[in-house]
Amino acid sequence: MRYPKGSRRKPSSNSIQPKQNKHQTKDAHANRGMTLEKDINETNHYYLESEQAVIHKKPTPVQVVNVDYPKRSAAVIKEAYYQKPSTTDFNGLYRGYHIDFEAKETKNKQSIPLSNIHDHQVEHMKRIDKHGGITFFIIRFSKMETTYLLPLQPFLKMWEAQQNGGRKSIPHDYIAENGYVIPFRLQAKVDYLKVVDDVFINGGEIT
Amino acid sequence: MRYPKGSRRKPSSNSIQPKQNKHQTKDAHANRGMTLEKDINETNHYYLESEQAVIHKKPTPVQVVNVDYPKRSAAVIKEAYYQKPSTTDFNGLYRGYHIDFEAKETKNKQSIPLSNIHDHQVEHMKRIDKHGGITFFIIRFSKMETTYLLPLQPFLKMWEAQQNGGRKSIPHDYIAENGYVIPFRLQAKVDYLKVVDDVFINGGEIT
Repeated sequence: MRYPKGSRRKPSSNSIQPKQNKHQTKDAHANRGMTLEKDINETNHYYLESEQAVIHKKPTPVQVVNVDYPKRSAAVIKEAYYQKPSTTDFNGLYRGYHIDFEAKETKNKQSIPLSNIHDHQVEHMKRIDKHGGITFFIIRFSKMETTYLLPLQPFLKMWEAQQNGGRKSIPHDYIAENGYVIPFRLQAKVDYLKVVDDVFINGGEIT
Repeated sequence: MRYPKGSRRKPSSNSIQPKQNKHQTKDAHANRGMTLEKDINETNHYYLESEQAVIHKKPTPVQVVNVDYPKRSAAVIKEAYYQKPSTTDFNGLYRGYHIDFEAKETKNKQSIPLSNIHDHQVEHMKRIDKHGGITFFIIRFSKMETTYLLPLQPFLKMWEAQQNGGRKSIPHDYIAENGYVIPFRLQAKVDYLKVVDDVFINGGEIT
């Protein structure tokens, strides 16, 4: 059974939630499910401070419709909308390599849904791969407290199967078989550069 | 004569203006001075489509304070503020190299002010340089319709001089001597990768 490409994609509720609020937010759900992102941000900060890598989260794209410019104070955005990111959430530089990845977590035990990964994000990652960058997913099964690095190629097998009417999620077993467990360290809660070393750089996946 | 570091920095009016509005904006000044950014975005789009490079503008960081979640429609941001970017405006991947740059334009003829370049942006670029990336400024003198690529090193000379009480702008002459004119092409209005090839890759500035 085949479906027209893209027709099964539900609007992502994650993509319309605010991220990284320093001020108090009036929305109680703002930080729901954002533990992985927070852990990666802290890890990236540690990598930066210890001079191992320069990797940042990109700001969430916002479409601004209305702005006030009060005298003697900062511009106030009065109406704006979250936009779907056209690239990945994180990118940067490590040992001369361009690093580019997307992070997703789920409370499911059996699988992670593909519904909030967007076509153009996958297209972006294919381009990064083609131009000599290192690209992958970081996937956390939060109930099991297990975080994996899944390279693009095994991801694409499931993604393309889905586009041909296959399952709408990637089984945990598949990720465990084709991905790599990311070690937890106190200073680097998602110590993914260790895996990048082993798999991509020393492992010869990239030259 | 020395000044305490940072005390002479005026708030940047550019940094509090909306960028990339698809919807109509009520602010008449929204796109003031944004020609260079637009030209670079178009150039990057051409590089992407012609499979030469994957380089994007990062979204402007916005601090969201208040969001409405109306039923059956998208979240509406009701109060938010522009933040100073902590990194550069553009980054990406070209021939396996990480590319990271900042773009500035001025209507002045004699010099470009340093006032809307931030400390943390310069620190970021020093890190990129150290970790094996290619980093530079694209500077346009819009009255002369001339656009330069200025590598980080000659920029730093002027930047550090400024921090020690030196002049608060970089003279056009200095940029002409230490930078490279970026050729204009119809499809790539700011064809900076041509200069990146000549200066950094073939020119041996990076290996």
